[in-house]
Amino acid sequence: MTKPIDIRNPRTGKYDYVIVPPPPMLLTQLCNRLRRSQKSWQQLGLEGRIETLKQWKQAIISTQDKLTEALVADTGRLSISELEIGSFLSSIDRWCRLAPKLLQETQQHTSIPFIDLQQTAVPYPLVGVISPWNFPLLLSTIDTIPALLAGCAVIVKPSEITPRFMTPLLSAINAVPQLRDVLTFVEGGGETGAAIVENVDLVCFTGSVATGRKVGEKAAKLFIPAFLELGGKDPAIVLESADLELATSAILWGSVVNTGQSCLSIERIYVAETIFEEFVELLTLKAQRLQLAYPTVESGEIGPIISERQAAIINDHLLDAVEQGAIAHCGGKVEETGGGWWCRPTVLTEVNHAMKVMSEETFGPIMPIMPFSTVEEAINLANDTIYGLSAAVFAQDEAEAIAVAQYIDAGGISINDAALTALIYEGEKNSFKFSGLGGSRMGAAALTRFMRKKALLVKTKSIPDPWWFDAQ
Amino acid sequence: MTKPIDIRNPRTGKYDYVIVPPPPMLLTQLCNRLRRSQKSWQQLGLEGRIETLKQWKQAIISTQDKLTEALVADTGRLSISELEIGSFLSSIDRWCRLAPKLLQETQQHTSIPFIDLQQTAVPYPLVGVISPWNFPLLLSTIDTIPALLAGCAVIVKPSEITPRFMTPLLSAINAVPQLRDVLTFVEGGGETGAAIVENVDLVCFTGSVATGRKVGEKAAKLFIPAFLELGGKDPAIVLESADLELATSAILWGSVVNTGQSCLSIERIYVAETIFEEFVELLTLKAQRLQLAYPTVESGEIGPIISERQAAIINDHLLDAVEQGAIAHCGGKVEETGGGWWCRPTVLTEVNHAMKVMSEETFGPIMPIMPFSTVEEAINLANDTIYGLSAAVFAQDEAEAIAVAQYIDAGGISINDAALTALIYEGEKNSFKFSGLGGSRMGAAALTRFMRKKALLVKTKSIPDPWWFDAQ
Repeated sequence: MTKPIDIRNPRTGKYDYVIVPPPPMLLTQLCNRLRRSQKSWQQLGLEGRIETLKQWKQAIISTQDKLTEALVADTGRLSISELEIGSFLSSIDRWCRLAPKLLQETQQHTSIPFIDLQQTAVPYPLVGVISPWNFPLLLSTIDTIPALLAGCAVIVKPSEITPRFMTPLLSAINAVPQLRDVLTFVEGGGETGAAIVENVDLVCFTGSVATGRKVGEKAAKLFIPAFLELGGKDPAIVLESADLELATSAILWGSVVNTGQSCLSIERIYVAETIFEEFVELLTLKAQRLQLAYPTVESGEIGPIISERQAAIINDHLLDAVEQGAIAHCGGKVEETGGGWWCRPTVLTEVNHAMKVMSEETFGPIMPIMPFSTVEEAINLANDTIYGLSAAVFAQDEAEAIAVAQYIDAGGISINDAALTALIYEGEKNSFKFSGLGGSRMGAAALTRFMRKKALLVKTKSIPDPWWFDAQ
Repeated sequence: MTKPIDIRNPRTGKYDYVIVPPPPMLLTQLCNRLRRSQKSWQQLGLEGRIETLKQWKQAIISTQDKLTEALVADTGRLSISELEIGSFLSSIDRWCRLAPKLLQETQQHTSIPFIDLQQTAVPYPLVGVISPWNFPLLLSTIDTIPALLAGCAVIVKPSEITPRFMTPLLSAINAVPQLRDVLTFVEGGGETGAAIVENVDLVCFTGSVATGRKVGEKAAKLFIPAFLELGGKDPAIVLESADLELATSAILWGSVVNTGQSCLSIERIYVAETIFEEFVELLTLKAQRLQLAYPTVESGEIGPIISERQAAIINDHLLDAVEQGAIAHCGGKVEETGGGWWCRPTVLTEVNHAMKVMSEETFGPIMPIMPFSTVEEAINLANDTIYGLSAAVFAQDEAEAIAVAQYIDAGGISINDAALTALIYEGEKNSFKFSGLGGSRMGAAALTRFMRKKALLVKTKSIPDPWWFDAQ
């Protein structure tokens, strides 16, 4: 039997929930059952699958209160939980609207006059999704919805740190007969995740670089595609001409939203030296206005740190920085209150790239700021990282900002705003360096990557025999 | 120092050529130099790159005789060597024609009214290409040309079994100043290939499943994309209604062209039992007409087996089949003549899936045929393999054939012809099962997979401050 896992509550610190990972043999059986059911799901056709997903949406709406409640228990924050549910519901609509065009088969003539091409695609039968704790609902469904519409069956293993939302979600899945045979969520930790990689035809992983590398290597061994969305250390560059009101508001939001627990949050800020002091002052002022969501979830904007292990990392980065001479203009500490771990928005100066807070993923509401004297220096600093997920550039003139963005090694770059890749789904983007591997999670590829392309090459008329050995 | 490798001549069996792999440190330096030069190659712009590739084409044409001679020495066959050069030259033209459209940047509005999307893409700096011996020129350049046009630098390591063509090819590269800084070919075996994976930003590998798996695992560990094009055991299905004249000619060509040394050659044939005898008779008759290209390269259609190791595998598959009761209607033996290894087109019946000749990649001019009674049985037999590269289906009515093709787990399927994926580049196709991993080598993806997509998300007008914390 597999061992139950006790789950901590991020607001109280109490272990008030238990999950029981499925034994390996049961997991394999479950995957085999999903793969068998996938055939009828594919045969159901896109129209039928759209209809089913819309039923799921209705079922979610019916259980929305319970889902919100479970997400709040998982994460300790309310408004972002509501945002997650809203985004999830609207992404069902968006994909149902986009899928018919993206899944169209095409026919064309080829360079050889008597041969036609019929371009078609078939879904990978079973997709595995392994998702993290920072946006439990959003990140466990972001790949799931397009995969289902493509015609795949999907098995999801959310993080063991935030498993409570699965219960209301599963009840909404079970309320839709055609869906429950091809979509399931399982509880479990790393071992269950590893077992999933071994049982699926394609894997989507969102999480750390270390685990992502293991998933990628195992997938390569098994010859299954792996789409890895890993960490980031996203820089913001504020050029001399930037609107400081705008830049400080956007960067503050991009840094501390969800208490900084977002792979694409701003974790490093580079500001032109001529405006550095003014920028720091204004950002600090705005940061100090934000309140902790304590004692109630509605008391403020900044929720608790969800993962106790992450709280220790944030604390370590802060101590390391201060020890090396960094100055905290506000915030600056990870503190235990009421059993949970909290950290106020923290503006740091006198930082450098030897500090962890400037080189490793912090995943907290920390805003370390460095001045630069030339644009070239700013670009070099921004690219001096093992990561390459996203970035932001601020300037009065958008062309000036775009010219800088061209040189930044990152897939999604916000111009005069921050972390827009969290809100805009149209653009295709690939991860650079250690931030990930595989097709884009955004844009058309987000759906088409779940299908294998098949080219049917049709000889359309009789041709004389010698064609074949002539072709030599 | 690295050890020189003696190279065998496939027609004489003599070791008449030597290569010297670069020492690891030299290879690393070479890769660093290529990566540095890539920046100006990218800045040169597409028009400049097209111009440069056209100059390369002219340089190749100037040295065409020497290139043909070297390829003939490498492979022992003439007409396919000429075909390789012709295909290579026309693929330069084709990609130069297609690239401008494929590399266009786009701009659009997004779902948020005040945010625009600018979709751009940047090349992976250095691409490594590791290519096999069966089509030395074609398979070392098929990925190289689109990668160069995308703006990448490329280092190619062709198989150590067929290295002679590199000398004239390198002289054509060195004749084009802007090209020689960003494209090079290096000699070497497996160790050099492994070192290349460690030094590049993306790897294209064409070869065996065993080595492909190693390349994929190493690439995953390094977080670089790997495009793997591996083995096949391509089936042909001949339905009862098929035109037998057409089916036998196409299948013969698809099975024995290049002496069967093609990943997408037909290696298994399933024929409706009602036409089985007639099919076998006709195929045997046509197979017997083909002659060995011995004593001269122009004596016949069937060249020598290029790799001595492959000759042993083909021989092993034939012995294993005959031992288990298979009957050879023509050919049937691997023989040494004049120092080379030869095998006549071989039609086999009384075969089954327990035999190696029906389950492992043979890579020779062997046509094992099994009868089937129902279409379902044919599909099951075709899919009973670890491979999924390509396939062929024959029927009077193309719709009947296409209906069967839908159920075959393979990326490229010829309808009323065989191995068309060798000739048609328009269709996108993915490999199934152990036949490969990564984006399509054909169609638009063949070029775009060499670029990372970047989404620039531009806030176009000032909006009120509360946008950011409202978005929660």
